Parts: sequence; C-alpha cells; structure tokens
Amino acid sequence: MKKIGIITSGGDAPGMNAAIRTVVRLAHSKGFKLVGFERGYEGLITNTFRPMGPRSVGGIINRGGTILYTARCPEFEKKSGMQKAAENLEKDKIDDLVVIGGNGSFQGAYELSKICDTAIIGVPSTIDNDVFGTEETVGFDTAVNTAMEQIDKIRDTAVSHERIFVIEVMGRTRGFIALAVGLAVGAEIILVPEVKFDVNKIYDTLEENHKKGKKSSLIVAAEGIGDTHKLTKEISQHTGYEARLSVIGYVQRGGNPTARSRFLASLFGSKAVEVLSNGEKDKIVGLQNGKIVTVSLEESCETIKPLDEKILQLAKELAI
Amino acid sequence: MKKIGIITSGGDAPGMNAAIRTVVRLAHSKGFKLVGFERGYEGLITNTFRPMGPRSVGGIINRGGTILYTARCPEFEKKSGMQKAAENLEKDKIDDLVVIGGNGSFQGAYELSKICDTAIIGVPSTIDNDVFGTEETVGFDTAVNTAMEQIDKIRDTAVSHERIFVIEVMGRTRGFIALAVGLAVGAEIILVPEVKFDVNKIYDTLEENHKKGKKSSLIVAAEGIGDTHKLTKEISQHTGYEARLSVIGYVQRGGNPTARSRFLASLFGSKAVEVLSNGEKDKIVGLQNGKIVTVSLEESCETIKPLDEKILQLAKELAI
Amino acid sequence: MKKIGIITSGGDAPGMNAAIRTVVRLAHSKGFKLVGFERGYEGLITNTFRPMGPRSVGGIINRGGTILYTARCPEFEKKSGMQKAAENLEKDKIDDLVVIGGNGSFQGAYELSKICDTAIIGVPSTIDNDVFGTEETVGFDTAVNTAMEQIDKIRDTAVSHERIFVIEVMGRTRGFIALAVGLAVGAEIILVPEVKFDVNKIYDTLEENHKKGKKSSLIVAAEGIGDTHKLTKEISQHTGYEARLSVIGYVQRGGNPTARSRFLASLFGSKAVEVLSNGEKDKIVGLQNGKIVTVSLEESCETIKPLDEKILQLAKELAI
Amino acid sequence: MKKIGIITSGGDAPGMNAAIRTVVRLAHSKGFKLVGFERGYEGLITNTFRPMGPRSVGGIINRGGTILYTARCPEFEKKSGMQKAAENLEKDKIDDLVVIGGNGSFQGAYELSKICDTAIIGVPSTIDNDVFGTEETVGFDTAVNTAMEQIDKIRDTAVSHERIFVIEVMGRTRGFIALAVGLAVGAEIILVPEVKFDVNKIYDTLEENHKKGKKSSLIVAAEGIGDTHKLTKEISQHTGYEARLSVIGYVQRGGNPTARSRFLASLFGSKAVEVLSNGEKDKIVGLQNGKIVTVSLEESCETIKPLDEKILQLAKELAI
Repeated sequence: MKKIGIITSGGDAPGMNAAIRTVVRLAHSKGFKLVGFERGYEGLITNTFRPMGPRSVGGIINRGGTILYTARCPEFEKKSGMQKAAENLEKDKIDDLVVIGGNGSFQGAYELSKICDTAIIGVPSTIDNDVFGTEETVGFDTAVNTAMEQIDKIRDTAVSHERIFVIEVMGRTRGFIALAVGLAVGAEIILVPEVKFDVNKIYDTLEENHKKGKKSSLIVAAEGIGDTHKLTKEISQHTGYEARLSVIGYVQRGGNPTARSRFLASLFGSKAVEVLSNGEKDKIVGLQNGKIVTVSLEESCETIKPLDEKILQLAKELAI
Repeated sequence: MKKIGIITSGGDAPGMNAAIRTVVRLAHSKGFKLVGFERGYEGLITNTFRPMGPRSVGGIINRGGTILYTARCPEFEKKSGMQKAAENLEKDKIDDLVVIGGNGSFQGAYELSKICDTAIIGVPSTIDNDVFGTEETVGFDTAVNTAMEQIDKIRDTAVSHERIFVIEVMGRTRGFIALAVGLAVGAEIILVPEVKFDVNKIYDTLEENHKKGKKSSLIVAAEGIGDTHKLTKEISQHTGYEARLSVIGYVQRGGNPTARSRFLASLFGSKAVEVLSNGEKDKIVGLQNGKIVTVSLEESCETIKPLDEKILQLAKELAI
Repeated sequence: MKKIGIITSGGDAPGMNAAIRTVVRLAHSKGFKLVGFERGYEGLITNTFRPMGPRSVGGIINRGGTILYTARCPEFEKKSGMQKAAENLEKDKIDDLVVIGGNGSFQGAYELSKICDTAIIGVPSTIDNDVFGTEETVGFDTAVNTAMEQIDKIRDTAVSHERIFVIEVMGRTRGFIALAVGLAVGAEIILVPEVKFDVNKIYDTLEENHKKGKKSSLIVAAEGIGDTHKLTKEISQHTGYEARLSVIGYVQRGGNPTARSRFLASLFGSKAVEVLSNGEKDKIVGLQNGKIVTVSLEESCETIKPLDEKILQLAKELAI
Repeated sequence: MKKIGIITSGGDAPGMNAAIRTVVRLAHSKGFKLVGFERGYEGLITNTFRPMGPRSVGGIINRGGTILYTARCPEFEKKSGMQKAAENLEKDKIDDLVVIGGNGSFQGAYELSKICDTAIIGVPSTIDNDVFGTEETVGFDTAVNTAMEQIDKIRDTAVSHERIFVIEVMGRTRGFIALAVGLAVGAEIILVPEVKFDVNKIYDTLEENHKKGKKSSLIVAAEGIGDTHKLTKEISQHTGYEARLSVIGYVQRGGNPTARSRFLASLFGSKAVEVLSNGEKDKIVGLQNGKIVTVSLEESCETIKPLDEKILQLAKELAI
C-alpha cells in the first residue's frame, strides 16, 4: 500500500482545497494511505503532518485558502533544509509527494527530486498562471474574476468622475492576470512586464480617446511594470486629465474558487492520482489544447511560459 | 464596402453584449458598415434595425442581457416568415449576418442560409452549451458560476438543518449545466437527461452517506430529468430524511458575464469577423482543443454535441 | 458562576453564527460557563450539548448557517416534550437560555418559560423579520440583499426579452421581505399577504406601463399571496404579454451575512448578555427607533408585528 | 409650477442614482419641472443641464455612480464661481436645488444658500457617513459591505499563511467605515482617526493573540490614521510575525448599491420632495432614531458628527 504525502506551497490560491480533496478522495479509493504536511516545505523539514481521509476534506471544495496552510520557507532553499526534508520523506516512507503550488514551488520540488527517491507530482495551483506545461493553473480564473469584478465597480467612479484610472493587479514578473483582466474589463490600455511600454504612447492614446468622446479610461497594469504611483502622477501632469491609482491587492488570492478553478482542481487532482498510481515520477499535470496532460518537472522548471501577445493585440483593437 | 447585420437570438446569455461589441468594433476597423437588427429573427422579418459603430457598444462589455433584444419568433418558423426575412436581407443589401445565439437559433440560421445569399456566421452564445462544434459557448461559464454560488449558499442551510437538497438547474434536454455545477459544488448525486437514473440507487447512496456521517447531501438535477417536485417528495418518504427542492431559475440567464464568458466572446467575435472578411459563409466559430476554429453551420446543426460522461463518473468518485 | 445555554432554532438565518460568537465571548468574559445545545429544542429534549468558549466561535462571524445546527422539533410542541426540555435545563443547572431564532421559536420559548425557572432571552434572528418588538431581525438584511441581487440579474433577461417577470420571494404569512426587495429593485408591483390584491388592477398597471414605454415589468410577490404559477399564467393570458415566474427559494436563507446582519448580531448578543447578567428573565432584545431595547417575551409573542404600508405606497409612487 | 434642479456632488456613492430617481419621479408626480445639472457645482457655473422626467431615470436604481456625473470644482470655492452659480440658478428660475452629496458638498451648499434665493435641500449621500444630522448616509452601507467582502477574502490568505494583515479602508478624517467594517469582519484591532493609538499596545495585543492560538490577525485601519505602510513594517519588525498591508481603495465607491442604500435613497428622496413642496428651505434630510427627519443646513454644517466609541469598545471585547 502506497503512502502519499501532500503539501500546498507558495502563495495560496483559490481551489487548492478542491485539489487536496480530489487527491485525498481518489487516492483513498485506490487504497493508498495519505498524510498532509503543514505549511508547505516547512512541514517536510519539521515533519509536521496529519493523516487524511475522505471525511477530513469534507465541506472544503468551496473554500479559498488551504487547510494544510502554506508558508515561505527560506530554510528549504538551503542545502541543509532540503536534505532534512528528503530525510523525513524517507523516514516517513512517503512513496509520492503531491506538491500543490506554482512555479516557485515546483522549482523547489525539482531540486528536492534530485536528492530523494520519493516520486514528486506537481499540481499547478497559483493565481499567477506562470507554470510552463499548462495553459491554466488552479486559482487563476478566480483571481481574474475577483480583479475584474472590482474594476467593474471602479468603472462606476471612472465614468461618474470622467477620470483615468490606473489599476494595478498582481504579477511581479508576469502579465497573465493583467492581460486576462484587461481584456475582460475592456481596458483602454494593458501594461505587462513582458512588453516594454512608451509612456508617450499612453498619453497619445488617452488624448485620442478623449477626442472620440471617451472621457474615462481604464489602464490595467501588472505590478511588475514599474512604479504605478509615479505613472499615474505623470499621466495626470502630462495630459491634464484627472488620473487615480487603485491597487487590487491580496484580495486576488482569496475568496471562494470559481467553477472553473474547482473544475481544474478536480481534473488535475484526478490526473495526479492516475500518474502516481502508474508509478510515474517527477511530473506535473497540466492543461494543453483542452486535454489533461503530464510534463516532466524538469521541462516545466526549465522553460519560461510564454504570454500570448496576440491576445494583447486583440485587446488593443477592441478598445477603440 | 461590406455591410454586416447582427442579431442576438434565443434565450439571452451573459456575454452576448461583449460579443456584439467585438464584432462591431473589429468589423468597423475593417471599414465595414454595421446594422443591428432588434429582437432576433423578428427584426429581420419586420426589418427593424439600427446602425452601429464603436461608440454604440461602449460600456456594455460587463452587462448581461443584450442591447439588441431577443425574442422567440414563431413566425420565423413558418416558410412565409423566413422568406420575408430573406427578402429584407437582400433588400437591405446585407452581405453577412452574424447570429449570436444557441443551437435553436443556428437551426433557424441554417434553414435561412438555404434560401438567401447573405453569408451567415454563428457565434455560439447560450447558457445551455448545446452547440456542436464548440466545447463551450459564451454565457455557459457565467450560468455555471451563478448556479454554483447559489448552491454554495443553500449548502449552509443543508448543513445547518442536516437535510437533503434537490437543486434543479437549467437544461431542458441537456445536462451540461447540471454536470459542471454538480462537480463544482461537490454534489453527492448529479442527474442529467442523457443518463437514465434509478431512484433506488439514489436512496441507497443517501443511506450510505448517512452511515458515513454525511448528514446533508446535495442532488443537482437538470430540469429535463423529470418532475423534481415528485422526486424530492419520494426521497423524503422513502428515506425518511428531510428533503427540500430548490429551483435555480431565470437568474442563471442574467448577471454580469464572467471573465471567461467575456474572453470567449472576444475570441469568437474576432474569429467571426476574420471569417466573414475572408468571404467564407455559413459557418459557426467555436472552441476545440484550446483553439478557435470554424465548423460548417450544417455540421453544427446536424450533430448532437455529446456530454462527457467521464466527468460524471469523476464527480461520482469525488463524492465519497 | 452562572451557566448559560444557547440554542439556534427555526429556519437558519445568516448572522446566527455571529450572534452565537457575541454571546459566547461576552458571557465568557463575565466569567459565565457556556454550553451550546444542538438542533434547537431537540437538543434540550435529548440533552445534547457541548461546552463553548472563545476559541470555539473563532472564524464563524462571516459564515451563514449555524454551527449549533437547527431543526424543526414536533416533539417540543407536545406537553411531554416541553416538560422533558424543562427537566434537562434544571438537571444541567442552566441559569439562562439564549434562544436565537424567530417568532415561531419565541412562541416555543414563551411556553417553556411558563414551566421552568431558567431565564429565557430571545435574540431575534430570522430572515422573515416577523418578530414583534424589533424593527429588524438578524438575517433579514442578508436575505433581502440576496433576493435583490438575483432580481437585478433577472432584470437583464426581462429587459432583453421585454417580458413581465413575477418573482416569488420568501414569506408564507408576512410580506417584509417582498416589500423591502420590491422597493430595492424598483418593482412595478409588490404583492404581500397583508394586503389583498385585485388581479384586474395588475392588468391595468401592466397595460399602462406598456403604453408609457415600459416593455418589461417586475412583480415581486411574497409566497403567501397565493399561487404564483397561476397568477403568472393569468397575466400572460389576459394581457397578451409574455410573463414568466421565478421562485427565489432557499438561497435566501444562506450565504455570508451582510455587514448589517453581523452588526445587529453583535448588538443584540451584547444586550442579551447584559440582560441576563442583570438577572432579568423572559425577554427578547430588539431594535426600536435606533436603540437596542428589551421587550417581554410575552408581549413579543402576543402581538403581531405590523407591516409599514406607507413604504408599500412609496414603492408604488416610485414605479411610475 | 415649481422648477427643481438636481446635482450630485463630491465623491460618487452607490445609491446616488436611486436618490435621483426618487426625487425626479416624486417631484414629477407633483407637477414640478425638473432639470439635472451635470458635474455637481461645475454644472451650476457652466449652466450645463438637461430636463429630467420619469423615463430618464428608468433602469438606474441598481447602478452605482451617478448619471448626472460629479466633479471636484475648485472654482466654486472662489467667490466669483459661487456668484456665477447663484446667478445661473436665478436666471434659470430654479426654485429648489436638491444637492445629493456629503459633508463637503453641503458646506458649499450652505455658502451658496447665503447668496441666493433658491431653496436648498441636501440628501446625504456619501460613503464616508460624515454628515451631522443623519445616522447614516446613502452609500455607506454599500461601501461597508464591499470592504467587508474583500476582507472576508483576505482572511483566507491570512489564515492559510498565518499572517497579520493591516487593511486600510477609506476615511481620511473619519473612522465610520473602519469601525463598521472592523466590527463586521471581527477585526482583532480597529484604528480610527478619532482615537489615538499606541503602537506598543498593538504589539501586546498581537502577542497575546498568538499565545491564545490566534495565528492570524486582522487590523482594520482608516486611511486617516497615518502611514499604514510604515505601521505594517513596524509590526513585522517588532513582533517578528509576518505582516502584510492591503489597501481597499476606490472599489469602495462603486458597485451596485445594497438594498439598504437604495432604501435610504428612496426615503431621503421622498422626504426631500415633501420638504420642498412645503416651501421649506436650506435643510438636509436624515435618519435619526429610526425616523426620517430634517435638520437645518446650517446646523448640519457647523456640527461635527460624533463616532460611537461604544461600538469600538464592543468590537474590542468581541475580538478575544
């Protein structure tokens, strides 16, 4: 009888609980034993775990956050910490470790896989959608909808006050959220870290919009594009239009998962259990071309997921 | 210079406005002229239309319903009515007609295509998700989330009262909504028109659940599975557990579209404009294997879209 | 040291958990001992209870439903059942019993108060808002907002299809929800059990509205006004306009409480603890003229709370 | 026949549209003529207005923002600007001006009332709830619920990461939003501009909480309490717990109004029309002790509305 460990790691994402539920229930049905380590990699190092079964994941499919907790774990980034984790996995006789997290967590998992025998299966779950090997991660759709709903509200004020709004959404290095949200709210301008922008073109666009009768404009910007406070101020000063900044912050991480985030959590979790049952190791599961697939942990970790710039172009053409 | 007509037809779906906006703005950018006929096919028969341009679709991306109105049109089902529509399209010199609607609307479009020269392009937009040729329709994701959010609330009462809840969602002939919603809320039982059910198995499942300590259970049923009032009563009487029915009705049709419904509306509308620019005719656009594709109107209308019964099986395995 | 029992009784209402939290934490701070009986009066009869303290009510302020469960209890309506409850309260040495519920629960509490020494304090908590002695009950504001948000969505379909919608909201005997919701959505017609209606006047109003250019109308009706299916059909047949019915059901009972429901739960719970600390007995707490007050259980149970018909008149004047 | 002008002024608030609708429809029914000036006081100075009637306020009861627009108007603060506004009111023969706004707008209205004959009626409508003479303003309940819903989501992350969250809500000079939101989310600490705080007491409270087993804590702070970035950093450094800041910004101004905001808009608007019909002048309407009352514009403007510190105390007692 296999023994499976589960962790959630990195920033929490809505749908992590749905993923835990899937893995626990399907693995239990196959007769596997399950333990949940708490606080991500920290739990591996401190060997803090609890047994899990079908009842311990009841009533969580619709809850944001993670019942297994999560934490940044600087110690795991050191050789000694990672070694300790590997030893505990061996000591606890964990055959497979399911890592529910994003790109950062998978990088850690990849390193760990090099020094321990436990098979590692990654379930991409992060609002950032930055995992190579899957078109979408668990939690991304929820974060996009949460940000979108807020901007729909801010639009009321933008229109009533005839103002420019710069809205900063999450994404320190990647623009997936900004792009999806910008398209969804009909943003006049979308700024992502992957594409350099020219502030003069922003001024031009805003001025053209004004001439067309668009008295309010929405600029959706990923946090990674630079100082949005400064940008907002510059826009105000240069164009003479009132501009305001709104930072959509941590709220994007929480809340009940959307149907799609729960759906992906179910499909990904199901594939993960299939994969580990087959004795495969060091893979992540993912969505590609409408199918649930696996990709090696190595490939996922060593490849940068591209942003679809055609969508950026489409958003621009739609904001006329 | 091409002249494009647009209609929204059949039951309204969240994202229809986003689709109108996309088609109008992109077609306008290509130099095409645009008119919107009102109330679906009725507007073709009465020749009721208005010119449309980029400003006439401002501020609608986030609105449910349709600014072009929609209506059932029994007259269009008669030969004389359809003939009149064809004559008006010719008289108005409409080169292409974009039909934003579901399977029923496309059946009408297909008939119309046989008697008129106007090229017809279908943009699948219905909460029912019943269009062959696309994995998902505009509005489906919103309807699923709306129903799911309601059932998340009903769960509070189910748990507090330790009751069985039968929840009827939309779907007179198809179970797409019921399946997606049932998976998302973690329903103990999902009933769809495509799969016959045995009421005795329902009793058995509920009794097993009770023994396991699950004192409340959710049964998600498509309206097409039969009389849910009767089913609820029978469950109460047979099992002795308190059962209640809740019908999630028209609310599933309305509300602001989700990010995904807006996203599909943008991609579908964009493809529709590309298709009609190319001089193609009598097609629908759709999502297949993660790509935006076209399918002939004929094929879409003459094929029944299958329900993915593997998902039904997965939902069952997860509800232990 | 006093010993306090708590029950939640009758239909669950959003904010019951917030009320439990308030009573438990404030009573604990005063050095009182606390137990929660489960499933309302049933728990008194079966003597099923658990000790409660500040940590047992953590993380529940924002949750719908009730962690103490609730149930209808036909046995409590019999003399023998009520007697058993009274005996258990005596045996368990419960000095005060806090009953969190609505009018039906308070009627039971009033009868119980006649045969036992335990002081009873009622905290009005029901979506029905039918408790005399308080202008508003915990949960009412949430139910009104939940129904309103749904009707805001249905309006999209009403406008797009140019239809009449009859919307049935909760209220078997009272029209508080229908009135508040009807005013909030700008319903053309509001039907409450307290005021007889003439179906011919409904036809007249709808026809006048149509002449004014209002092609869609919303009729908000309490469930207690009669057969809404029949009414909808009659309206269709008589006026010739398309009419549809939507029943907003159990969803009104669940969901996270609004700020106001939590606010009232905090103020009511606080007053309840003050009252029982003072050694007062057989009272309910309530909101009157912006102040938190107490009313005798007897007076609350023997008086019918009036509906404010001036608001009904105002809603009518606003729907022109 | 009276002629009534309407403006919305200051920051937009959800329910302003519902208030416009009420005033327009009820005043129209009394046979009064109505014009809406655009962009608040700016519209009075530029004499930009449009006629209004029952149909021009259809479909807006559920919309955030204001169809009459609003703007800051520095020119109105100068003598010459205000004089110009007064002249236009006289020239346009406006008998009564309904000002829908907050304390700042009423200060302007009060000054204007000293130099013109037009009767001024204030309808308190601001998320800030800072108007003396009314316990609640239109829009306040919506803003509180919007902020609360966000913090309910942030709590998921706070719990999952076992972090302290400082959450900044609106309120540059007043703590009404912070207090109501803090109570509603069960914040461990609430900081308002009206009450000085000692950062050492915050450290103590957080450390006590940690000992009790509360690994996450929420601190709700009004923006007016000082630099929340600095505070968050200091908490992190001093206590050693991870602390994060989230600023709930402009989203609090927008969105569909809650039932209560629409209810107050209806009652306030109704009272405003009654007041101006009676020939009263230079008043505001308000809610006091559960009744709709009037207060002189002078008294409202020259009195500071007190914050109820007993609620602050209650919130503290509940956060044990």
